[in-house]
Amino acid sequence: MQLFIGNQNYSTWSLRAWLIFAQFDLDVEVIKLKLCSDEFYKTLADITPTAQVPTLVNDDVTVWDSLAILEYVNETFLNGRAWPSDLVERAKARALACEMHSGFLDLRNELPMNIRARRKVTLSQGALMDVARIDAIWSEQEERYPGEWLFGEWSIADAMYAPVALRCLTYGIELSERARAYQQKVLASESLRQWLQEASLENDIVAKDEAGEVV
Amino acid sequence: MQLFIGNQNYSTWSLRAWLIFAQFDLDVEVIKLKLCSDEFYKTLADITPTAQVPTLVNDDVTVWDSLAILEYVNETFLNGRAWPSDLVERAKARALACEMHSGFLDLRNELPMNIRARRKVTLSQGALMDVARIDAIWSEQEERYPGEWLFGEWSIADAMYAPVALRCLTYGIELSERARAYQQKVLASESLRQWLQEASLENDIVAKDEAGEVV
Ligand SMILES: N[C@@H](CCC(=O)N[C@@H](CS)C(=O)NCC(=O)O)C(=O)O
Ligand SMILES: N[C@@H](CCC(=O)N[C@@H](CS)C(=O)NCC(=O)O)C(=O)O
Repeated sequence: MQLFIGNQNYSTWSLRAWLIFAQFDLDVEVIKLKLCSDEFYKTLADITPTAQVPTLVNDDVTVWDSLAILEYVNETFLNGRAWPSDLVERAKARALACEMHSGFLDLRNELPMNIRARRKVTLSQGALMDVARIDAIWSEQEERYPGEWLFGEWSIADAMYAPVALRCLTYGIELSERARAYQQKVLASESLRQWLQEASLENDIVAKDEAGEVV
Repeated sequence: MQLFIGNQNYSTWSLRAWLIFAQFDLDVEVIKLKLCSDEFYKTLADITPTAQVPTLVNDDVTVWDSLAILEYVNETFLNGRAWPSDLVERAKARALACEMHSGFLDLRNELPMNIRARRKVTLSQGALMDVARIDAIWSEQEERYPGEWLFGEWSIADAMYAPVALRCLTYGIELSERARAYQQKVLASESLRQWLQEASLENDIVAKDEAGEVV
């Protein structure tokens, strides 16, 4: 089984899909392609219809979207345990995951993931609202499950929000106390520390993901 | 159980969620709120964190995203049969559903659903690529399952692509023969005809969804 990802410094959707393999210690060959490179498009052209990462290939199965990969892995290898087992909680976790998958466009545009950088940005009204919404989600769940993942046990919802923990670090976004506690938990987790370590070995620059003023 | 939707003439995400109830004849109270109205925001403020439609409320469960609603209904009332039962096919159907859920931004911006209108638009390069991709998806699946739904039996993937069948009609988008065959199947289906009939009773105008030149 092969997981195609982009630069670990920049590629948020790659991180989301990669996390489920790391969290559950699942065997996968990770193939890293430099975003915007000829090799990226050449390699993916034969595999995926959209030429984007992450893409998972498992024999005759090809899955070319982060959330679809997470659902596939959850069903195929984890017997469903990457979603909360409680129906009410699972519905909420899915809504939160879908909210990230389709939304937060201003936050995603204005605060591109850029792990190695420390930057200052002036946020639009839309991005401020996105940050406030993230803070509300994290705080609410941290109050319900103090010191734990968003729904107690680690779930796909945590995968979807993980890149935001890193964005808040890069751009010095202030969070409320509870939201910060969740962010710190994400940053201290073993899987994320492995990703950070691997990202720190990269030095390619992707111009379109370089935002803000160096601090 | 209550499903909150927007104007049927305009609201694509509402249509997607509504379709699973119609296809499987599931009991639900549909509550229609006029997009952009005070009532819309007032009603949703108490129910959902994002103030968007569709939102499903079932006792203590609230689900505020189309794909999350489709997954919830599928798991809770349909025993999983709204996805293909075959693992390989299900992975592909999920990837296609997720591709729509997170993508096709140019098509979504430039060709807003507007069922009652017939318009002419000049598409950007990005929107043309989106149309070509849709055509490719529909053609490929129509070749695999001639005269049937995208994966033979109706699935959540069909829900996700249904609004595009209507957009192609409104803006006179030309499709290849196979893609057109699938589009016609969607338009002729009982559930879609019910939606169209209900939409035809509306006459509110949502200015931001009025695009193109009247033909
Ligand atoms: N909806 C997709 C989005 C994937 C995506 O946007 N991937 C980016 C990298 S994070 C990419 O491949 N960009 C390269 C390109 O679009 O050319 C998902 O959830 O996987
Ligand atoms: N990702 C959401 C998108 C929902 C959405 O954008 N809904 C639109 C109507 S189709 C809406 O509620 N717009 C009103 C607003 O945003 O104020 C979903 O899949 O349900």
